[in-house]
Amino acid sequence: MISMELGFVTAILPELSLREILQFASAEGFKCVEVMCWPVGKAERRYAGVTHLDVTAFGPGEANSVHELTAKYNVAISSLGYYPNPLCADPAERDKYAEHIGKVIKASSNLGIGRMTTFVGRDHLKSIEENWSLFQSVWKPLVELAEEHNVRIGIENCPMLFSNDEWPGGKNLAVSPEIWHRMFDTIPSKHFGLNFDPSHLVWQQIDYVRALQDFRDRIVHVHAKDDKTVADLLYRRGVLGLGWHIPKLPGFGDVNWGQFFSALTDIEYRGPVCVEVEDRAFEYSIEGRKQALRQSYQYLRQFVC
Amino acid sequence: MISMELGFVTAILPELSLREILQFASAEGFKCVEVMCWPVGKAERRYAGVTHLDVTAFGPGEANSVHELTAKYNVAISSLGYYPNPLCADPAERDKYAEHIGKVIKASSNLGIGRMTTFVGRDHLKSIEENWSLFQSVWKPLVELAEEHNVRIGIENCPMLFSNDEWPGGKNLAVSPEIWHRMFDTIPSKHFGLNFDPSHLVWQQIDYVRALQDFRDRIVHVHAKDDKTVADLLYRRGVLGLGWHIPKLPGFGDVNWGQFFSALTDIEYRGPVCVEVEDRAFEYSIEGRKQALRQSYQYLRQFVC
Amino acid sequence: MISMELGFVTAILPELSLREILQFASAEGFKCVEVMCWPVGKAERRYAGVTHLDVTAFGPGEANSVHELTAKYNVAISSLGYYPNPLCADPAERDKYAEHIGKVIKASSNLGIGRMTTFVGRDHLKSIEENWSLFQSVWKPLVELAEEHNVRIGIENCPMLFSNDEWPGGKNLAVSPEIWHRMFDTIPSKHFGLNFDPSHLVWQQIDYVRALQDFRDRIVHVHAKDDKTVADLLYRRGVLGLGWHIPKLPGFGDVNWGQFFSALTDIEYRGPVCVEVEDRAFEYSIEGRKQALRQSYQYLRQFVC
Amino acid sequence: MISMELGFVTAILPELSLREILQFASAEGFKCVEVMCWPVGKAERRYAGVTHLDVTAFGPGEANSVHELTAKYNVAISSLGYYPNPLCADPAERDKYAEHIGKVIKASSNLGIGRMTTFVGRDHLKSIEENWSLFQSVWKPLVELAEEHNVRIGIENCPMLFSNDEWPGGKNLAVSPEIWHRMFDTIPSKHFGLNFDPSHLVWQQIDYVRALQDFRDRIVHVHAKDDKTVADLLYRRGVLGLGWHIPKLPGFGDVNWGQFFSALTDIEYRGPVCVEVEDRAFEYSIEGRKQALRQSYQYLRQFVC
Amino acid sequence: MISMELGFVTAILPELSLREILQFASAEGFKCVEVMCWPVGKAERRYAGVTHLDVTAFGPGEANSVHELTAKYNVAISSLGYYPNPLCADPAERDKYAEHIGKVIKASSNLGIGRMTTFVGRDHLKSIEENWSLFQSVWKPLVELAEEHNVRIGIENCPMLFSNDEWPGGKNLAVSPEIWHRMFDTIPSKHFGLNFDPSHLVWQQIDYVRALQDFRDRIVHVHAKDDKTVADLLYRRGVLGLGWHIPKLPGFGDVNWGQFFSALTDIEYRGPVCVEVEDRAFEYSIEGRKQALRQSYQYLRQFVC
Amino acid sequence: MISMELGFVTAILPELSLREILQFASAEGFKCVEVMCWPVGKAERRYAGVTHLDVTAFGPGEANSVHELTAKYNVAISSLGYYPNPLCADPAERDKYAEHIGKVIKASSNLGIGRMTTFVGRDHLKSIEENWSLFQSVWKPLVELAEEHNVRIGIENCPMLFSNDEWPGGKNLAVSPEIWHRMFDTIPSKHFGLNFDPSHLVWQQIDYVRALQDFRDRIVHVHAKDDKTVADLLYRRGVLGLGWHIPKLPGFGDVNWGQFFSALTDIEYRGPVCVEVEDRAFEYSIEGRKQALRQSYQYLRQFVC
Repeated sequence: MISMELGFVTAILPELSLREILQFASAEGFKCVEVMCWPVGKAERRYAGVTHLDVTAFGPGEANSVHELTAKYNVAISSLGYYPNPLCADPAERDKYAEHIGKVIKASSNLGIGRMTTFVGRDHLKSIEENWSLFQSVWKPLVELAEEHNVRIGIENCPMLFSNDEWPGGKNLAVSPEIWHRMFDTIPSKHFGLNFDPSHLVWQQIDYVRALQDFRDRIVHVHAKDDKTVADLLYRRGVLGLGWHIPKLPGFGDVNWGQFFSALTDIEYRGPVCVEVEDRAFEYSIEGRKQALRQSYQYLRQFVC
Repeated sequence: MISMELGFVTAILPELSLREILQFASAEGFKCVEVMCWPVGKAERRYAGVTHLDVTAFGPGEANSVHELTAKYNVAISSLGYYPNPLCADPAERDKYAEHIGKVIKASSNLGIGRMTTFVGRDHLKSIEENWSLFQSVWKPLVELAEEHNVRIGIENCPMLFSNDEWPGGKNLAVSPEIWHRMFDTIPSKHFGLNFDPSHLVWQQIDYVRALQDFRDRIVHVHAKDDKTVADLLYRRGVLGLGWHIPKLPGFGDVNWGQFFSALTDIEYRGPVCVEVEDRAFEYSIEGRKQALRQSYQYLRQFVC
Repeated sequence: MISMELGFVTAILPELSLREILQFASAEGFKCVEVMCWPVGKAERRYAGVTHLDVTAFGPGEANSVHELTAKYNVAISSLGYYPNPLCADPAERDKYAEHIGKVIKASSNLGIGRMTTFVGRDHLKSIEENWSLFQSVWKPLVELAEEHNVRIGIENCPMLFSNDEWPGGKNLAVSPEIWHRMFDTIPSKHFGLNFDPSHLVWQQIDYVRALQDFRDRIVHVHAKDDKTVADLLYRRGVLGLGWHIPKLPGFGDVNWGQFFSALTDIEYRGPVCVEVEDRAFEYSIEGRKQALRQSYQYLRQFVC
Repeated sequence: MISMELGFVTAILPELSLREILQFASAEGFKCVEVMCWPVGKAERRYAGVTHLDVTAFGPGEANSVHELTAKYNVAISSLGYYPNPLCADPAERDKYAEHIGKVIKASSNLGIGRMTTFVGRDHLKSIEENWSLFQSVWKPLVELAEEHNVRIGIENCPMLFSNDEWPGGKNLAVSPEIWHRMFDTIPSKHFGLNFDPSHLVWQQIDYVRALQDFRDRIVHVHAKDDKTVADLLYRRGVLGLGWHIPKLPGFGDVNWGQFFSALTDIEYRGPVCVEVEDRAFEYSIEGRKQALRQSYQYLRQFVC
Repeated sequence: MISMELGFVTAILPELSLREILQFASAEGFKCVEVMCWPVGKAERRYAGVTHLDVTAFGPGEANSVHELTAKYNVAISSLGYYPNPLCADPAERDKYAEHIGKVIKASSNLGIGRMTTFVGRDHLKSIEENWSLFQSVWKPLVELAEEHNVRIGIENCPMLFSNDEWPGGKNLAVSPEIWHRMFDTIPSKHFGLNFDPSHLVWQQIDYVRALQDFRDRIVHVHAKDDKTVADLLYRRGVLGLGWHIPKLPGFGDVNWGQFFSALTDIEYRGPVCVEVEDRAFEYSIEGRKQALRQSYQYLRQFVC
Repeated sequence: MISMELGFVTAILPELSLREILQFASAEGFKCVEVMCWPVGKAERRYAGVTHLDVTAFGPGEANSVHELTAKYNVAISSLGYYPNPLCADPAERDKYAEHIGKVIKASSNLGIGRMTTFVGRDHLKSIEENWSLFQSVWKPLVELAEEHNVRIGIENCPMLFSNDEWPGGKNLAVSPEIWHRMFDTIPSKHFGLNFDPSHLVWQQIDYVRALQDFRDRIVHVHAKDDKTVADLLYRRGVLGLGWHIPKLPGFGDVNWGQFFSALTDIEYRGPVCVEVEDRAFEYSIEGRKQALRQSYQYLRQFVC
């Protein structure tokens, strides 16, 4: 890849088949998509439970079909995505998640994509310290599996702390540079990295430009989402509260995208940048969500084309 | 309308016929235009007196012709515009203005547009207080007329206070949230609202993002114009003076358009956003003014497409 | 009181007797002190457990002695302070705290001070919602007691969330305007208010000037402490982490004291403003802590004299 | 004078005699006072109508008495102040004002003070242009008189535009650098200058530091007053409205006093700086107003001592 | 020219012939190019030594060929560029540079372009003062030559001070408004002006918007390059050091392009704006450099189209 | 020392004897002074050449006299200062300077002061690199001498680059963190440190708060001087020019003194902070310079008392 490629996360279009998604992406100018690979079934939360590729029985035939589609529409698959909570309190659930992550890794390898994107998860009722040994026991074997299949795992840096039932810890440990350092000290493999999303850093007041420099070797995948602080709610609740910031399309929030892409060029990142739509102002219909992708494309191509 | 639509105000192209304007709009990607409907005659000030649609004798035949044109070029009419001073000191003039506003309302109804855009006006030599009973007597019947014809009136929030002959009060009362509240308390009809233009708020130091939230149910139409403060003139004159800020094309002034459009999506505004060109740097020729529209389109489509 | 009076919180000088404290206060120009009234015993945390006035057996004789001292040194007692966690998980402990709060209220009444300052507390492992019925059952009777004795209770707005053993909720519910509104909706008595400390608001990004306006009728007492964000730690941890901000003397942190005192004058607050020293840079010796008080006095008298 | 001298405007203490004022000034550390010299009679507006020195019959005997007082308390008189509207619409009133200004000039000369401070005034219903010939005819003879008596006139740069009955023009023309230039072009005498008050510039958004540089030769006297913008009112009304900013004591508003005094030292101003108290938060009693002066002294002496 | 035209500097594509460059420019939407005209030979520094047009033997035939190419691809030549150090210490070298500048001027005249872009140069070991007589003796005849051929010379405002061998003075005097004034006072000819590049002003902290206003009659050509300060290096070295800022593509640095283009419209500049690529993040291959031009075009067309 | 102590640099009062200086310091509240120890003779530049203590023949008798004086006035000597250019181009001059520095070190030791303050110097026509071996050969023996006498040398971080005859390098190498690191790598002795003056960092855009943290073990002495950027001159000259910033008294420039002293407390600095007056606005007479010290004391005691 000689430069960055603009794509989107398929979770926002659950009604469409993979073929329809690639067709839409192609028509709108996107060069890649991050394909959702949840197990077939009911979603457990907003934006989850979407299956654009069923990895549970994925062999050479399925791979060929996918390759034909991506070739036909000239749109690449940037990564296979699946975002459960692999450190949740229930051991049976954890095993189920880890097993499916393994399948996604193998499918990514079979397809020659080389990237798998997810959360590390967290037992949200416990402290970071109390989660650490569980983190280690769950993730060491998964990263080893990824190494064997030459797939890089990109952990999204999302706190998963938006509502009272995710309070206090959120459902994903990987939220800050301090924790990322600890993660990579514990599991130093180069196949373990970040799915870097600046929208989660801007409201945590973490300098995403410095973070890109400090973790330049760990950037596996990039999400383009924005987030804005609602001044009146911040006044009422303060940073210890919930809900005082909302996800927005790129350009409609507090991220400085010029500086963000400038830093991406400085660290010589040449990989996918996928728009993730979670802006409720555009979710009234599938047309609205498609419009959200078009709009994001128009905004972002001033920085990546 | 599933999203906002980008258009322009036709006043900047007085030389062109409606057909030529629609043709130009279509070629440049605009989806709508706000059509000027002044009575045929001489302009009384810059940007006024333009007649792209003569509403004085407007019947089914005229409506059909217009519909054919908008269909042919696939460009909608966002609103019929006419911006006199309906509260001016001279009663005869006032009556003339009110009568013509009535005709524009009816034409908008006949064409199925549903929007009419104008000023409330002001006797510029009198205080707000002294203007209020006149405001009430002039506007109550006009808003009733609009209700009958199911047309929403959008009052542009322009102070009309740029030169010494508009001093001290300007020729339009509707300049600030305090006055808007009073207007809508006096005339609560939902057919009475705003043609919201952030350029007039930015130099008054009124937070246009908060204003969009506070008046979300009153946004009938939106103008996209920018305005920039000239630091040296502000030093010389202070905010009590005149002329220290100048209208500019969107992107060339002090409005933060990302925040502005972000707020428009938050309040779920799905209507026209019409570029209004009053940037003297582009007024040297019709080519310059066309270029101004092209330029504005290029800039704004990053936020609305 | 015709204006504000500058004082300090006695907790920082545990080695001194009340007499010595009043003497020091007088010599340095302070007009009042908030006197710590913990039960005699061992401190459970930094700055706690200090007993400058033993309220357990407090009758007219003790009151006379105190009055003689305050008269001699011409230094008033702004409030009697005791800061336990009255909503902690252990019911026996809770009862003990509530009982002692009652004694402090009575002593304040006996001394004619009319103010008692404390925390509402919190079961720090539970959500705000889960704490609410406990809050109500503990505090309604205490506020009634205060009413009977004509003492105003000032709840300090400190999150008490500085270390891992206070995680996740902190040991005091009263941290933000939203929660204050809920507190005062639940217990509307005018004898229930705030011991307002801007240092806890500045890092929560809560506008303390607006808060003073919104809660102007609830300001029972004011603490003057500052707090500064350490940029490098904020980068590493983000606002979800701990320890990225540190308490400092007034003038050495991020509070804008000119704006703060300006707002206090606007709301016509005429009561005590007590310096609370928790700046570790000055805690190396009793001389250092005295110097911290001197220094704070020098800084603050530009705003209150 | 080897440096600046801190004083206050006596208008805030109308109950006191000149002797009592000098006594108070001396006790609080002030080195000078600007003495109000209104004709004996009823005040026409807030802060007006105060007579601490009756100049209507002022001869050598009166001068001696004043000199004895200033010597006794070692407090100088920085200027004689009288602030009517000498350009008001009524010619009889205008003549009365001009005549009394003349008397104040002569008294200042008799006392060897050399400064007289006032407004140029304005017919507030007329434009600047329409006021100009009146300005010339009223002020040329007054400045000539001042030259003859070697007294410098300092015009305060106050817009006198705070309420509806001062709308639209305010009752003093001398509000901005553009107008000052015109004033000094029209009447170039070095005995005609400014009583420079930054509080009126900060809300007009006029850079007071640059203004001090540009008018360094015209600074006759300096007022130290502050002013703060109330964000919520500015939102409601915008800069075209009234009442969105309020006078405050120095340090409690938006003036940057460090930069202000820094600029005063750069232009080598060595004259009086008089605190003008118009902060309503301190006007509840004479004690409050005295406290306001004390407070201002404490704040300002960090910059002038 | 009715508006600005977007182009690029050809130095970044040394591998391509003029024909290939025009073809690429045309395909990507550029309307002009600044063509490098170094003497054929070895480059003496990065970005130098590129010969897209050999002016050493340039007659009517060569001019015809060029005109055919520009007509074929509909891409204009904005200027002929050659950037040596015409004030270097070695007189022989100086003469060589001056002679070649003369040839470039003549070629520009022959081609009807009317612009030649270069540096004034500097003996970098000497002060500005010590360079001045040399400046005069070298440039007076060159500007006279340009006048004769009706070519405007645009001096790029680049300090040429990036490395230790350019320390201390840099290899181009023309870095700041003070020096530009001196240059134009010394040689007032209207054929002597600036090739205005904001990237060199932003890190020198020179207000490029004011500079455009002050030198509006001297803007011969415009470069669009950006530059960003690297905070950590600035801390280590301060503004007296080297290397703490790096060239970037437009939109990836500290220039505010909206304000910059707004000012260009205000001064009625209607000429070329050529992207100059010196962003090392894009120099890994010719594909990267082409991508840099595409990217810059995408970013800049929001302001110029 | 339990806290910082406020003093001043004696160079600003060359007319006074050491006795008179100590008397003045005592009367004004200062606790220490940095005493100038130039060889008796003519000053070579502004603020140089002042001899308040002649160290050329300094034995026990002289030491006793000094001790008597400091005891009498209860004012300490914070350091002995002498600021030549020990790396100047002329070897004879260099030797003379080094020799005298040696004498100052010994006198400091004899007096039990333990600090000597100076510049490292620079051959201002040479690069940093070219100066380095000279730096090493001059300073290694001087630091060894200081170690032997248990005196800490504090190098002031002044660029000594204010006029054309100091261009281009300035006459003191020790200007930035990068160079300080190199100095202390070359000569790691703990007796070699900084006389830290924030005024030289603020215009170099070096974060003085971070610098205090990074060099906390090297702070031997502190100067309190301020500096302000003159916006108009910065526009004309840019950061490569000279003279666009001027020294001012503390509080009258761009240093944030609250943050500065806050950082000093964080690093537990407990030593002298000496006001250095170089503000030309106060240099009109000895009374002006005394006033400058009084003024600085008033300003700074809000942060150190």
